[in-house]
Amino acid sequence: MLAARILEVARDSFAQNGWAGTTVRGVAREAGVDPALVYHYFATKDGLLDAATTPPPAFLQGVAATWAGPVPELGASLVETTLRNWDDPELGSAIRAILLIAAHHGPTRERLVGIVRGGLMGPATVGADETERERRAGLVATQLIGLAFMRSIWRVEPVASMTVAELVAAVGPTVQRYVEGEIA
Amino acid sequence: MLAARILEVARDSFAQNGWAGTTVRGVAREAGVDPALVYHYFATKDGLLDAATTPPPAFLQGVAATWAGPVPELGASLVETTLRNWDDPELGSAIRAILLIAAHHGPTRERLVGIVRGGLMGPATVGADETERERRAGLVATQLIGLAFMRSIWRVEPVASMTVAELVAAVGPTVQRYVEGEIA
Repeated sequence: MLAARILEVARDSFAQNGWAGTTVRGVAREAGVDPALVYHYFATKDGLLDAATTPPPAFLQGVAATWAGPVPELGASLVETTLRNWDDPELGSAIRAILLIAAHHGPTRERLVGIVRGGLMGPATVGADETERERRAGLVATQLIGLAFMRSIWRVEPVASMTVAELVAAVGPTVQRYVEGEIA
Repeated sequence: MLAARILEVARDSFAQNGWAGTTVRGVAREAGVDPALVYHYFATKDGLLDAATTPPPAFLQGVAATWAGPVPELGASLVETTLRNWDDPELGSAIRAILLIAAHHGPTRERLVGIVRGGLMGPATVGADETERERRAGLVATQLIGLAFMRSIWRVEPVASMTVAELVAAVGPTVQRYVEGEIA
């Protein structure tokens, strides 16, 4: 699909060249389409950025479905969902682009904070009250985000080469403790 | 000190505008100095980037000293050192700049991987052999890096507002388990 190809090129360009360094014309050229088609799909450069930094619905749905699973398995299932999302070529590259663009684009960083709080921490139903729920979900996020950076963005060994099963065994208990263990 | 002020401006500029969008002239202007002075201190734009993405020695020394401390306290001490480093205005902004520049500059990402593997994981002496040592240190890094992103780069609540003592209590046991607990 042409829109998907344009979006993929746009994500790379915004991530590598920033907002100012990205042009609709340049994205169109690299995607092998007419600039008019980019405008047709995304209206403006802002529209293109907006689409490029919107997480794929499948990503957020997968996270929400995982949080809705059995509490005693959340540690393992959240780690596994995170790794599968990042390993998926399409989902992984879309999320990666959001994190990279957020590094040098303030509005995207705000959007990213919204995604972390709303999409990753929001569906959590753990804890005795809202304060505890947010704190537990936030701690879970610290671990899963650091894992994603080490393994899928910076590819730091040996973490980058550990299997999903190894990481579930190593990191799952951390997340389980944040979900229901002693944290204070 | 003028060199420090130039470096601070350069870090911001490389992080926000990228390699291509940063000029020695622009950095000099913003730092309120003559471009000749920038060349005097850093020789070239590459020299300026190199200095801007070199972690402050105090940062790496602090991490190494912490790893050399008593093993039963490593969980708490590593979390505390990480938070203190990030909360330090000078150290925190220097490390933050390296992570942000790495988002869109390949060579800086390679340098960052070197810092994580050499400076953060390197001084670890945990585990029964080198494979286990690297794996444990790598897992420690996943947690500490995710904590830094949530708290100091993206400032996601409620993690961003938790005190050092609260985070040591919550996250310390995770790190302690990676240091000497069951991870497989």
